[in-house]
Formats: sequence, structure tokens, C-alpha cells
Amino acid sequence: MKTLFFYTCLLGMLLIFSGCRQEQNTAENPQSNQTEPQQPKQQKFAIAIHGGAGDIQRGQLSDSLENAYKAKLKEAITTGYRLLKNGGTAVEAVQKTINVMENSPLFNAGKGAVLTHNEHVSMDASIMDGRNLNAGAVAGVSHIKNPIDLAIAVMKKSKHVMLADVGAEQFAMEQGFDTLPESYFITQRQLDNVRRVKKFESNKSAVFYDPVLGAEKLGTVGCVALDKNGNLAAGTSTGGMVNKRYGRIGDSPIIGAGTYANNKTVAVSCTGWGEYYIRGVVAYDMSALMQYKVLSVSEATHKIIHEKQPKLGGTGGIIALDHYGNVSLDFNTPGMFRAKMDQNGNLEIAMYEKKGE
Amino acid sequence: MKTLFFYTCLLGMLLIFSGCRQEQNTAENPQSNQTEPQQPKQQKFAIAIHGGAGDIQRGQLSDSLENAYKAKLKEAITTGYRLLKNGGTAVEAVQKTINVMENSPLFNAGKGAVLTHNEHVSMDASIMDGRNLNAGAVAGVSHIKNPIDLAIAVMKKSKHVMLADVGAEQFAMEQGFDTLPESYFITQRQLDNVRRVKKFESNKSAVFYDPVLGAEKLGTVGCVALDKNGNLAAGTSTGGMVNKRYGRIGDSPIIGAGTYANNKTVAVSCTGWGEYYIRGVVAYDMSALMQYKVLSVSEATHKIIHEKQPKLGGTGGIIALDHYGNVSLDFNTPGMFRAKMDQNGNLEIAMYEKKGE
Repeated sequence: MKTLFFYTCLLGMLLIFSGCRQEQNTAENPQSNQTEPQQPKQQKFAIAIHGGAGDIQRGQLSDSLENAYKAKLKEAITTGYRLLKNGGTAVEAVQKTINVMENSPLFNAGKGAVLTHNEHVSMDASIMDGRNLNAGAVAGVSHIKNPIDLAIAVMKKSKHVMLADVGAEQFAMEQGFDTLPESYFITQRQLDNVRRVKKFESNKSAVFYDPVLGAEKLGTVGCVALDKNGNLAAGTSTGGMVNKRYGRIGDSPIIGAGTYANNKTVAVSCTGWGEYYIRGVVAYDMSALMQYKVLSVSEATHKIIHEKQPKLGGTGGIIALDHYGNVSLDFNTPGMFRAKMDQNGNLEIAMYEKKGE
Repeated sequence: MKTLFFYTCLLGMLLIFSGCRQEQNTAENPQSNQTEPQQPKQQKFAIAIHGGAGDIQRGQLSDSLENAYKAKLKEAITTGYRLLKNGGTAVEAVQKTINVMENSPLFNAGKGAVLTHNEHVSMDASIMDGRNLNAGAVAGVSHIKNPIDLAIAVMKKSKHVMLADVGAEQFAMEQGFDTLPESYFITQRQLDNVRRVKKFESNKSAVFYDPVLGAEKLGTVGCVALDKNGNLAAGTSTGGMVNKRYGRIGDSPIIGAGTYANNKTVAVSCTGWGEYYIRGVVAYDMSALMQYKVLSVSEATHKIIHEKQPKLGGTGGIIALDHYGNVSLDFNTPGMFRAKMDQNGNLEIAMYEKKGE
């Protein structure tokens, strides 16, 4: 009986002690939970995109518009996928993927960007290279076809991270960028839209109205990529809010708010109500939650999108990709234009609440 | 004997289990390490300021200039201290304290701000209220006497967080702000300085040269305060880099980079090479390290200033104040203009490497 008690107690102690050690290990090693068997195994490369979050609901879009969105999302992500497959860098994949969406009037970035109160375009973009934490951003540019390209030039060719307005365009011209007249960017649909919003500007929600979608949308495009060398990158490009005034800068060109990438943790691009994303320092918070609190990429997006942002009042979405190729596409709006593609070419495109649609 | 074994084992299990729970509690409660006996006990209010970090070395300044700096730092911090003592809010204390430094040509903010390549002023400022995570920021303003006041107006009177350039000034005028001609801000010393820098602009370090100090300085002013209601606030104001071009935006007006405050953790204002502070998301990283990694305020500043920023290549300093009134003023440059004051009116002003000078 004595022996039985002894072994029972010893076993109990060992079990508790072992549980205790496991807790400690998890807390000390920021990546330890990602080597557990239940996690997907390491992938060589991966890519994910978003084209904005908002009131995107089934039955709202015509079949032809839905197909147009899906086709453009597919064209964008496969552009980046092919680059990665051929050994391109994560930064290149992010750039070329975003270019496709910037060049399409379906999305609020580049051509077809929403218009300011004065009926101008004022576009923002940012890029971050997770390999060395280099970053570049531009805010308030009006004549650059692909703002993400200018953000990359700021990162690679200037000693600065963030350039704004005419100064940013002056830098672009010195770097050999072509400038375009604003008429290239301005579509009749967006012109009608801003005029409509101006009539009803006391209605706060109107500033996010998207005339292509025919509903409220927090418009941005973004891409996160992991290349064959294990490097992560993230980029975001946007026309901002309809009817914006006063040189408003949202989260998209702010490193840590709308965009962040770090090879140690995650690449993140956000789309949402920019002010709340700035106050929540959302993109970097993803990295901090994963590095310091040992959350997985999906636990971190869930915490921010379904706990922290709603508490603050923010709506929108996040796309995130960790350095094992695990992807999380999360949002607290009815829908988010999104797609992801793994190294085997498995493509998922979705728009509404449930995945795989 | 059986009973003895039983109780011995039970005691052992309880001890281990209790140790295990303690570990878990520490990891779950972001502030738990600050209630340990070795920590200073809770203070009712406190304030700290910086006036820029840089090559500030003993024997470099004339006695009269050193005294002028000390007198102005004292005037600034006691302004905020009196407000806090009389029940003022942390935001008010930060504002009025920074105003004193903005109005003095000794510091690179407001009057006497450094000049851009085109010999203009282009000032940035930001504020964050730790009570509700509200924030406001302005970038590139040229006619507003106290940019921190405009940042506060953005926080309180607009639905935005960040406004830039002429748009920000238009908002200021609509809010009843007086505008001043640029001649108010431009001192002969700064005019001579930017012309000197332009001659030698291939010398990278020249962009941080401070003509008042006669040495390299990363110029900003900042303040963190804790009021009697336990609310934290942080603010930063700057003229940016000498000879800056292309509408460059540094860390000072970026929430999460140059400024952050959260009642749960810490109020932070940074002064340093802005690009590195943006890439490090330094101000929010302070909060994340304290909340998620359970570091104390001084452990967090040490980790960033002496480990993370040097690894990235960044130089500068941080002032931080937690919600118990614990202050950390840390920097990796030879000196930093700084001061702190506790609720009992104990004032410490320092400039060089060691404290209390």
C-alpha cells in the first residue's frame, strides 16, 4: 500500500511537472508551437492576396461581376505564383501581383481609385521585405500608375521609408518613373460616386461606399508572399476613402499599421477602417503576438479581427502568411475579396463569409 | 509511514503545482511583474520629457548654453507637473509641456525647427491618449505655431488620425487655428545650417547636424505623462531632418513608431533616426514587450535601445512611463536632453551619458 501511494504520488508529480515544463518551453520559444505535429508541414513557397473587405454578400453581385472579380483575383495571384515558382523573390511577387489589381478598375487602387473631396486621386502604398526589415511607402500620389512600384523604389533607392505628396512624385520623376495625367485613374463610376457621397456626407458610412460593388467596402489591395529562399514580403496599395479631405493618411502606407513583414514571424497586409488599424498598430501586432505570445498565424489574426479590433470599433480584414507557408485570411465584415495559393498550385478564391466560394 | 509518504508527496505536488500556476499567472498578466516588492510602489502622477538625442558630450557646450538648455527643460517639465498636480489630464500636461519646447529655438520643433532642402519648415507631431487609444498626428505643416496642438485637434475634432501638408493646414484653419508666416519659425542659425549641409550633402551624417548644439543631433521633443486618474499620454513634435526632401515623413507623426500610449502598459515618445524607428515599430514594440513578454519598462527600453535598434542600425533614445509611474529614459547616443519629475516634485534633469548631471 505504501509503495502504491509512493508511485501514485511520484507519477502525479511527474505528470504535473512535465505539464509545467511544457508551458515554460512554449513561453520561451516564439516558434515552438509551429513545430507541433498538428501544424501543416513547411512549404517552399506560398502567396495570398486581398482586394478589400466590406459588405460583400452572396446574391448582391451579378454573375458577370462576380466572375470578373474572381478572374482578376486569379490573374493577380497566379502572376505572383509563377514568379515564385520560377525562383523570383517575395518582393517581386508582391509587386507584380499588386500591379494586376492596381491596373484593374474593379479595385480601389491605381486605375479606378476612389476620389477625394476635390475629385482628385490620392493613392498610398507600402512594401516591407521580411528578410532585412527594409520598407518603403508613399502617401498621396496622384500621377504614378503603380504606387507599389514607387514604394519599392523608396525602399531600394532612397534613404527614407516614407515619402508624401508632390515630394514623393518628385522622387519618382528623378527615378525615371513615368507620370500619367489624373484622367488615367479617374473613372466615371468613381466620379459619380464621390459626387453622390458629397451630397450625403453627413452619413458616415457613405465614405466607404464602393460603386463597383454597389455596397460599403473598405477598399485596398494587398499581397503577402513567401519565396523559395524562405523570405517573406508584404505590400498594400489603396486609393483611400471616398471623399477624403485634409490630406488624410490611412493605415495602408504606414509600416506596422497596414503592412508588416519579418522573416522571423509573418507577412501581413490589412484592409479596413484605417484609423482603427493605425490605433491598433495591427500589422506589427500580428508579428508581436506570434513572436512574444507564441500565437499561431490564425490565432493571431483571430485575436485581432474578432477581439481587439471590434473592442476598439474597427472593421476590416487581414491576410497573413507565416514563414512555414501557413496562411490566415480573416475579416469581421460580411466578406473579403481574397485568394491563396500553395506551392503545389492549389488555388482558393473566395469573396463571402465561408471559405472556398 | 504510509501517512508520512502521502503527506510528503501531497506537499511536493502542491509546491510544484503552485510554482507552475505562478509561471502561468506571470505569463497571462502583463503587469504582474510590476507588483513585485522590488518595484517602486505606485505613484499618483509623473512626467518625463526629452529634447532630442545625439552627440551631446560633456565640455562641448558653453556654460551659458548648457544652462539655457537646463532652464528650458525645467520650465517645460514643471509646466506639465503643475498641471498634473492641479488635476489636469495627461494629454493637457503633454501638450503644454511640449508647447514650451516648441516655442524655444533651442529645440528642433516649432520655432527654430530645422529647414528642408528648399529652406522651408516642415513640422510633424503626434499625440496618443492611453485611456482610449485615441490618437492624432500631423505631417509636413509649415504655418502652425504649435504642431502638437493641431495633432490634438485632429484627435479630438476629426474622424481621422493622420493629416498631412496643406490638407492638415486647411483643417487647422477650419478649426480656428492662427497661421503664422514661415519667418516666425526660420532662424538665421537654421538657415545657415541648411545651406552648410547642402554644400556637403554627400556626407550622410550632416543631415542630423544641430547648429545650436554644434554637433550631430537627432532632433525631436517629446513628453510622456501619467495623471492622477491613472491615464497615460504621449506626444512628440519635430522639424524632422535638416535638408530633407521629397516630403519625407519620419517616425514622429507615426502612431506606433514615434509615439504610443496605452493605460494597460506604457506611454512612449521616441527621438532618433526616424527610418529605423519606423522599421522597428519602436513605440508600440515597447508596449508589446511589456504586455506580451512581461518586461518592465526599463527592461523593454533596454532591449530596444541596446539590442534591437543597434542590430538594425538605428541610433537614438526613448522616454517611457508605465502606469505605476516608473520612468525609463534610455538612449544609445552619447547623450539625450531629458528630465523626469515624480509626484513629490523630485526633478532630475540630464544631458550626458550618466544620470543626474
